[in-house]
Amino acid sequence: MKAEIITIGDEILIGQIVDTNSAWLGSQLSLLGVQVVQITSVSDNAKAIIDALNLAKTRAQLILITGGLGPTKDDITKHTLAQYFESKLVTNPSVLEKLRDWFEKRGRVMSEMNAKQADLPHNCEILANELGTAQGMLWRSTEYWVLSMPGVPYEMKFIVNNGLIPLLKQEANLPVIVHQTIMTCGMVESQIAATIAPVEDALPQHIKLAYLPRPGIVRLRLSGKGTEREKLEAEIASYELQIRERLGHFVYGVNEEPLEAAIGKKLLAQTATLGTAESCTGGSIASAITRIPGSSAYFTGSIVSYANEVKIKQLDVSPATLENYGAVSEAVVLEMASGLKQHLGVDYALAVSGVAGPTGGTEEKPVGTVWIAVSGPKSTYAKSFNFGTERQLNIERASMMALYMLWKMLVSN
Amino acid sequence: MKAEIITIGDEILIGQIVDTNSAWLGSQLSLLGVQVVQITSVSDNAKAIIDALNLAKTRAQLILITGGLGPTKDDITKHTLAQYFESKLVTNPSVLEKLRDWFEKRGRVMSEMNAKQADLPHNCEILANELGTAQGMLWRSTEYWVLSMPGVPYEMKFIVNNGLIPLLKQEANLPVIVHQTIMTCGMVESQIAATIAPVEDALPQHIKLAYLPRPGIVRLRLSGKGTEREKLEAEIASYELQIRERLGHFVYGVNEEPLEAAIGKKLLAQTATLGTAESCTGGSIASAITRIPGSSAYFTGSIVSYANEVKIKQLDVSPATLENYGAVSEAVVLEMASGLKQHLGVDYALAVSGVAGPTGGTEEKPVGTVWIAVSGPKSTYAKSFNFGTERQLNIERASMMALYMLWKMLVSN
Repeated sequence: MKAEIITIGDEILIGQIVDTNSAWLGSQLSLLGVQVVQITSVSDNAKAIIDALNLAKTRAQLILITGGLGPTKDDITKHTLAQYFESKLVTNPSVLEKLRDWFEKRGRVMSEMNAKQADLPHNCEILANELGTAQGMLWRSTEYWVLSMPGVPYEMKFIVNNGLIPLLKQEANLPVIVHQTIMTCGMVESQIAATIAPVEDALPQHIKLAYLPRPGIVRLRLSGKGTEREKLEAEIASYELQIRERLGHFVYGVNEEPLEAAIGKKLLAQTATLGTAESCTGGSIASAITRIPGSSAYFTGSIVSYANEVKIKQLDVSPATLENYGAVSEAVVLEMASGLKQHLGVDYALAVSGVAGPTGGTEEKPVGTVWIAVSGPKSTYAKSFNFGTERQLNIERASMMALYMLWKMLVSN
Repeated sequence: MKAEIITIGDEILIGQIVDTNSAWLGSQLSLLGVQVVQITSVSDNAKAIIDALNLAKTRAQLILITGGLGPTKDDITKHTLAQYFESKLVTNPSVLEKLRDWFEKRGRVMSEMNAKQADLPHNCEILANELGTAQGMLWRSTEYWVLSMPGVPYEMKFIVNNGLIPLLKQEANLPVIVHQTIMTCGMVESQIAATIAPVEDALPQHIKLAYLPRPGIVRLRLSGKGTEREKLEAEIASYELQIRERLGHFVYGVNEEPLEAAIGKKLLAQTATLGTAESCTGGSIASAITRIPGSSAYFTGSIVSYANEVKIKQLDVSPATLENYGAVSEAVVLEMASGLKQHLGVDYALAVSGVAGPTGGTEEKPVGTVWIAVSGPKSTYAKSFNFGTERQLNIERASMMALYMLWKMLVSN
């Protein structure tokens, strides 16, 4: 099955927003064994949309359209497609009901404009959008599927994950493809490549290994193509095992699991609690940990001690230590960690203090200097790093490194 | 002048990389008054490239092609275009010389493969690439320009900034174009549309208004086309003023400024300090505020009181209040705010407590229920919201709403 993506919106053409939807759709479709042959971005304009659609039909059987829906867009896509597929717009009562609830839940009144979102083509299938007001509209024939979705990324993803993908798996005959993504932290690409070279060299033709790096993390994706799913899954599993054996604790999970989630599982298993004392990371570690559902079972809280007085008053860091060693020092992060354990009564504490930049650097402690301490029931240690000159990158890298140091301690306990 | 962008590369189609080149080109061209009518991403394949090019010529006079150059791509684009424009590949001595220097400077020997980069179509203009080995190739006729560039972003940008743009300014007669982006918070798209309808309806043909929403924020972009820059800038300014008059404090800044930065400026102007007491947002407000360089001048710190004991011990929330009203209540967020002011000695305090989900909801307080308190030198108020069922969205929306409530208080003080 071949697919094309059509994104509608002047904001993409003038570069006000980067088209991340197409990249996400491209990756999801490849995982299903559907080949994306073209991505086309056009203006909010009926002729442009129809021309793109007609051409896409000559090359693909699955055509995904995003954007051009919603009141301020004057629903250009909906009206254009309704005309194209010779359908009337009729008010869909169940959608109208949902919309009313949607606004009620948010304590808002549904405007005339909003109500129009329930007027939908009579001859399309509705793929529900539970995160917004514009629904997915799917026209299916024996030759091709055309699906129109809103451009808001999380709404589009909801429709794809809950509407399109289940339907594709059920109705389209897709090739047997098996993927397994191994999540690693604490090692860079080249180190991993050197460590698992023998496994990689031994991979058969039909199984590929891709390195997919992210700040602080490298994902290793094994992809196999075949005819018998069970046989293929067993093959992939055996290569996964070989990679795990070589990488040890640097592997923290599989299939896009965030490091914070893996840490959460370990804490639950140890019925232990966690807190963070953050200076330069400004709460971003706590915020990463609490993104995970159920984190309240092990995360107690955080003290973001941006000002020194907070380090002193809320974390018992001694003024003398701050005076003698400076806020960005081993002594201070160690006192932050022990102070946090005292005040919050947690089993594990992370403490971070650094120079995020762009200002505040010195000869001795340039921008990017970060001290991180991790303290558990059995041990405490601190380490210094330099993450470079970019403020946002420093914060991200410091957060990821702190989480990795905690992970390392959790697996060794 | 109308333009089209063609990006070549399977890595874009399978979503391994996001096509940021097109967004950058789109923004640069719009600033020049060149309208991008379509962006097309195709595979590394001669037929796909030629088809895209032929169609682009029916719609645009400027066609920018990125990617598909370089040894690993087997120079698919160069060979395809050479054939398309009936040109022979001849070794360009000055380019060859440059390449030799380029590798020498980097202490590397120029391989046969690399030397091939100096074999260029005899009938195109070379737009030099001083950051890489693949040159810009420009074919100009009276009807259209076709420029092929490498896909490496900084190389592409070098060719555009140093080769294409000067040439466009000199040879193409471009219109005068002026943009102004107004940043708003606290209102959704449809509310804004209703409020500024009279202004929008009165806009002349040559001035357009675009709504560009982001979570918690809507950007309003005024774009004008004309002949005299000063006259046009004055016109845009007057419409900006009319919009500001109608939206009042809902306008917090211009040109992509983040709300946290606008808040920072107000706090600096009032020489006031800020702290946050966060439960369900888990530190994400603090982390947003501290992303802004220089935030240490006004941000004191945060107490992330995920567990009730932290609310009690670190924020003096009374156990009775928690018992009687529950952690997600007006009484609790008010006590969190006043406790934070006590402990951190800040002038402004934000306090948030809610049910982020997916679990923890009750009949009375379903998932998405969030109480937010903002407390300043002169006043304190709290408000409840329901942000829906998605955990991550609840956290983002609660954070944005808290920042908006703070902004509202700052502008009224």
